[in-house]
Amino acid sequence: MTVTAPAPARFVSFEGIDGSGKSTQARRLADSLREKGFDVVLTREPGGSPGAEEIRSLVLEGAPDRWSAETEILLFTAARRDHLERTIRPALAAGKIVICDRFADSTRMYQGLRGAGLRAQVDALHNLMIGVEPDLTVLVDMDPETGLSRALGRNGGEERFETFGAALQADMRAGFLDLAREYPSRIVKVDGAQPIDAVAATVLAIVEPRLR
Amino acid sequence: MTVTAPAPARFVSFEGIDGSGKSTQARRLADSLREKGFDVVLTREPGGSPGAEEIRSLVLEGAPDRWSAETEILLFTAARRDHLERTIRPALAAGKIVICDRFADSTRMYQGLRGAGLRAQVDALHNLMIGVEPDLTVLVDMDPETGLSRALGRNGGEERFETFGAALQADMRAGFLDLAREYPSRIVKVDGAQPIDAVAATVLAIVEPRLR
Ligand SMILES: Nc1ncnc2c1ncn2[C@@H]1O[C@H](COP(=O)(O)OP(=O)(O)OP(=O)(O)O)[C@@H](O)[C@H]1O
Ligand SMILES: Nc1ncnc2c1ncn2[C@@H]1O[C@H](COP(=O)(O)OP(=O)(O)OP(=O)(O)O)[C@@H](O)[C@H]1O
Ligand SMILES: [Mg+2]
Ligand SMILES: [Mg+2]
Repeated sequence: MTVTAPAPARFVSFEGIDGSGKSTQARRLADSLREKGFDVVLTREPGGSPGAEEIRSLVLEGAPDRWSAETEILLFTAARRDHLERTIRPALAAGKIVICDRFADSTRMYQGLRGAGLRAQVDALHNLMIGVEPDLTVLVDMDPETGLSRALGRNGGEERFETFGAALQADMRAGFLDLAREYPSRIVKVDGAQPIDAVAATVLAIVEPRLR
Repeated sequence: MTVTAPAPARFVSFEGIDGSGKSTQARRLADSLREKGFDVVLTREPGGSPGAEEIRSLVLEGAPDRWSAETEILLFTAARRDHLERTIRPALAAGKIVICDRFADSTRMYQGLRGAGLRAQVDALHNLMIGVEPDLTVLVDMDPETGLSRALGRNGGEERFETFGAALQADMRAGFLDLAREYPSRIVKVDGAQPIDAVAATVLAIVEPRLR
């Protein structure tokens, strides 16, 4: 009889609403794992490869109604495909750990919640053109008011999605929690309201055992 | 008993290999129909709306291996979706005739022939995100040598696809002829080797009866 250990988690994504602390925690995890001697590629979406970063600029600049939800889904999926081919797959093939600040779950929420039928369209498109999920997804859960005030406290140019407001952030939080129930073995929820160090320690305790 | 006339052709595309005369004939048809009092929108792909023209620049500039076939298919489909929403559908809804220099058949050929399984992926993506065909497609058929020498005789910046060469053009011609057999009621073939005026007269004789 062979006892099989769970497959190691080499591709880890961070998800959550705006300002929940995804980028902060992705960076902290990358730093901790590098200190422990792991070879880590820290990347982000939309973007993460030269072509995908150009698509990112096209999507995130301009007026909120510049692209329909469907066009936006196609552009994000094009960026993801490029990112996967040029950055993620080569890194995994070289034995590296890939930490990705947002991945397909963000499209499921940000575009999938924009109208009836869109979530199904996002999933169908994902299955057709991407077909890959992270081994492990850390959902940084956070109440929308705190998240929004954190996000607005920072400064940065590409704030188009954040102008969508507090009601959408609340829907999004609920949507991410639903997603965690939909993918229970992949998505692990952490409490983003804790101090940065506490969240980082929780995340490391979840991820590290799964790397061996 | 009700006798139903064929649905009028309000959305007409031009297809064919590089240099076959699509743009020339699309323009000629638009001019002739305008002279006859029709309200015509002449448009093109990739492009045809402000957003789609930006995606066009992203795809057509740069090295031939800048994007994989799959990423390219996603970008062209994003551009097509925007073009459809912002230009084609509004024009048709306003009772105009839309003449489009290339449409989805070009993606079926240029991207669909780039590798095994890609044509099926192009079609699946089209069905998922576009779901519309022109009422009538004029295939300007042309031997590749003549087409290529015509195309190279012009000057223009975006020649990336034309560098793919004569063998590909020959495959493409065969592919377009296969497509005409696949969609016999939609695609009508015309001989592009005739002089411009003769081709234009043939095209007008095909299209005009289908507009009433
Ligand atoms: N646990 C925390 N406690 C307090 N402040 C935090 C915490 N985590 C992050 N922050 C701060 O909140 C702000 C947003 O954090 P961060 O940029 O990591 O969020 P994000 O989820 O990546 O946001 P976005 O969705 O906009 O990319 C930053 O200024 C960050 O320093
Ligand atoms: N029937 C014809 N006889 C001779 N020359 C032609 C004919 N039709 C077009 N040409 C010339 O051939 C060149 C290519 O024509 P055109 O630009 O219309 O082709 P196209 O199919 O749109 O090419 P592309 O695929 O590169 O967009 C132009 O210089 C045009 O004037
Ligand atoms: Mg961030
Ligand atoms: Mg042309």
